[in-house]
Amino acid sequence: MELTPKDLSWRNVYKLMVGAVVPRPIAFVSTISDTGVLNLAAFSFFNAVCPQPFILSFAPMLRGEDGEKKDTLRNIERTGEFVVNAVTDRIVRPMNETAPEFPPEIDEFKVSGLTPEPSRRVRPPRVLESPVAMECKLLQIVNFGTQPGAGSLVLGEVVHMRIHDDVYEDGKILPDLLAPIGRMAGDEYIRTTDRFQLKRPILRV
Amino acid sequence: MELTPKDLSWRNVYKLMVGAVVPRPIAFVSTISDTGVLNLAAFSFFNAVCPQPFILSFAPMLRGEDGEKKDTLRNIERTGEFVVNAVTDRIVRPMNETAPEFPPEIDEFKVSGLTPEPSRRVRPPRVLESPVAMECKLLQIVNFGTQPGAGSLVLGEVVHMRIHDDVYEDGKILPDLLAPIGRMAGDEYIRTTDRFQLKRPILRV
Repeated sequence: MELTPKDLSWRNVYKLMVGAVVPRPIAFVSTISDTGVLNLAAFSFFNAVCPQPFILSFAPMLRGEDGEKKDTLRNIERTGEFVVNAVTDRIVRPMNETAPEFPPEIDEFKVSGLTPEPSRRVRPPRVLESPVAMECKLLQIVNFGTQPGAGSLVLGEVVHMRIHDDVYEDGKILPDLLAPIGRMAGDEYIRTTDRFQLKRPILRV
Repeated sequence: MELTPKDLSWRNVYKLMVGAVVPRPIAFVSTISDTGVLNLAAFSFFNAVCPQPFILSFAPMLRGEDGEKKDTLRNIERTGEFVVNAVTDRIVRPMNETAPEFPPEIDEFKVSGLTPEPSRRVRPPRVLESPVAMECKLLQIVNFGTQPGAGSLVLGEVVHMRIHDDVYEDGKILPDLLAPIGRMAGDEYIRTTDRFQLKRPILRV
């Protein structure tokens, strides 16, 4: 099948996109509004960029219902700060409780029952129950328009990282203890249990 | 444990980063040099951005050995085109054969035994054996410096998409038939077999 994305509706491209780009890591992003309301929302168009400077990117789409910017993006535009919390087996259900498009006055920490933990270098709190929290300062936002299906890319520098001791050993994060959850299409998530190793070949030229 | 990334070596940040941001999707990127040499290389700092325009991002780091730009990035800078091919159970081993930092005159299609298939809208060929190929035109490259551990973020618009009929049904890509592979830290990869569903809650405000 051969397809031209711009000839399809954005919802049809979306369905193919979330099935083609898998599995996706999940950024559970905490922010704070300029009036002090906490926000917590999950984004799976998320990844690392490079380690020095330590940069993360995530892409909030415009809201499906009204085409407005999500609270997370508005808060970052105004405050320049956010925290990316890892999503694990233990917190994926509370995370899912934050998924509806709540109005800005709703604090999703309260909705989910998760605990705000003060950050060291930014104002938005970390998620206490997440084993890895990365405190970020905004570097740049790249916008891709205001049409339905558009979004923005948020680039942030990790200025501080908190790792629970029980998932850390000798400079590494242990996947069996972290128990990270990934995102597939539709309502599907994955556990990262079905792992295998491939050694990088030696250069033979 | 509380850490300040800029006080660590880039290799130490890298180890934490690839363990914290998991599981990552894999972009198997085909490009062509200005002298016509084909290139094929895998990148796991990769994700979707938004569906309309349909944008993908991936982040090639500078080469670990000599701090130079990777061939993929050079080719995209010069030609403005690339193809992102999905990595599946069937092609992950040939993909791994392309992992060494080969000199630019080496064609990783030949190294891996994978088959170049002509693209419809760009010059670099698609990977015939990959069930999903997304032909991209370069939109923007964001650079994060030339120091060790730095990288670039490549943003491209998908101008054409090819999906094998046997992984497609009713506007969706079927994960059991696609059999996508994800990236963890170190030498580890995952199959996306251990899936579960979570329904998004209804808004009750």
